[in-house]
Amino acid sequence: MKIVLFGAGGTIGRHVHSRLKKAGHEVLAVGLTSGDLRADFRDRASLRALFERTGPVDAVASAAGDVVFKDFTALEPVDWASSFDSKLLGQIQLVRETIPHLNDGGSITLMTGVLSRDYVRGGVIATTVGRAIEGFAQALALELPRGLRINVVSPTVIEDSLPHYGSTFAGFEATTGAAIARAYEKAIFGVRTGQIIEVG
Amino acid sequence: MKIVLFGAGGTIGRHVHSRLKKAGHEVLAVGLTSGDLRADFRDRASLRALFERTGPVDAVASAAGDVVFKDFTALEPVDWASSFDSKLLGQIQLVRETIPHLNDGGSITLMTGVLSRDYVRGGVIATTVGRAIEGFAQALALELPRGLRINVVSPTVIEDSLPHYGSTFAGFEATTGAAIARAYEKAIFGVRTGQIIEVG
Repeated sequence: MKIVLFGAGGTIGRHVHSRLKKAGHEVLAVGLTSGDLRADFRDRASLRALFERTGPVDAVASAAGDVVFKDFTALEPVDWASSFDSKLLGQIQLVRETIPHLNDGGSITLMTGVLSRDYVRGGVIATTVGRAIEGFAQALALELPRGLRINVVSPTVIEDSLPHYGSTFAGFEATTGAAIARAYEKAIFGVRTGQIIEVG
Repeated sequence: MKIVLFGAGGTIGRHVHSRLKKAGHEVLAVGLTSGDLRADFRDRASLRALFERTGPVDAVASAAGDVVFKDFTALEPVDWASSFDSKLLGQIQLVRETIPHLNDGGSITLMTGVLSRDYVRGGVIATTVGRAIEGFAQALALELPRGLRINVVSPTVIEDSLPHYGSTFAGFEATTGAAIARAYEKAIFGVRTGQIIEVG
């Protein structure tokens, strides 16, 4: 299968990339500054140029996008705007530009996180954006043509990142990169659509 | 109680306004082009000017904000941007500017709709925005100081609007303005916080 993976060089993307490659798939790693191909899903022209180069693909998966962590009253409009542009509107635009280049039955996989369903101080943007993406995927799944599918992988904290977060995720059980990569496999190779695959 | 109501002249806002007034509360109706006071929650300066005029209040409620309805592939970036600016970032900004002007124990009530949990063709922005607002309120409720509360009223289609929607909501049972107004009362006068009050 020919798979385009956004954020392939990130903490989670590395695990997904490695697992898909080992399974023998043709994986095109996409990043802002590294990877087989460069693209920025905040930029429609950049996405169009990317798909000009890839041609038709069987799956597009995203493990990319950033959100700002701060107490609500410390958040400025620019924090909301940059988070929305990246993780929310960026992933939505990726979906929009992907559709014409997906083979029949192809899939799109987006990523959210545990803060869609559990809450931490400073995580209000993460929760807002995660819930938006999950609703987006569930509503869109019913509209997609040609047997196209869309799902969301929503992992808890990955063990690789836990040391960086300090006490923010106190009491959360971390998951592994392998478990998250398996969730992407379920989304890409399974039959499901409009589902949120929680990991951990 | 002194209550600021955004969108007081709208289809739903009219019912909420009328019920709160009948119960003897001081209701300041806010609209873009009508009402006791004019303000636009997309504009921070407009909100600040509003609260300069109102002084401290006991509750702020919103029945305002618009989203675009279109099939996903017909949506342009401007449709997402205008919907987000109005219903999503507008309501979030309203919350941010409200906090310093709420009396201790005061409440904020936002509005989403049935498309957060049920799906119709053309409703992908409505679902995305609704789920975002609901997550936002649930996460933020845990951060609010001074006993402040935040809740979301999420009604199904109101019977007044059904004739305008044609077949979009085929099979949906409509609710009444009175039922929606009662949900706002629960949110404003009750003890709950971080809750989504579904109506219908």
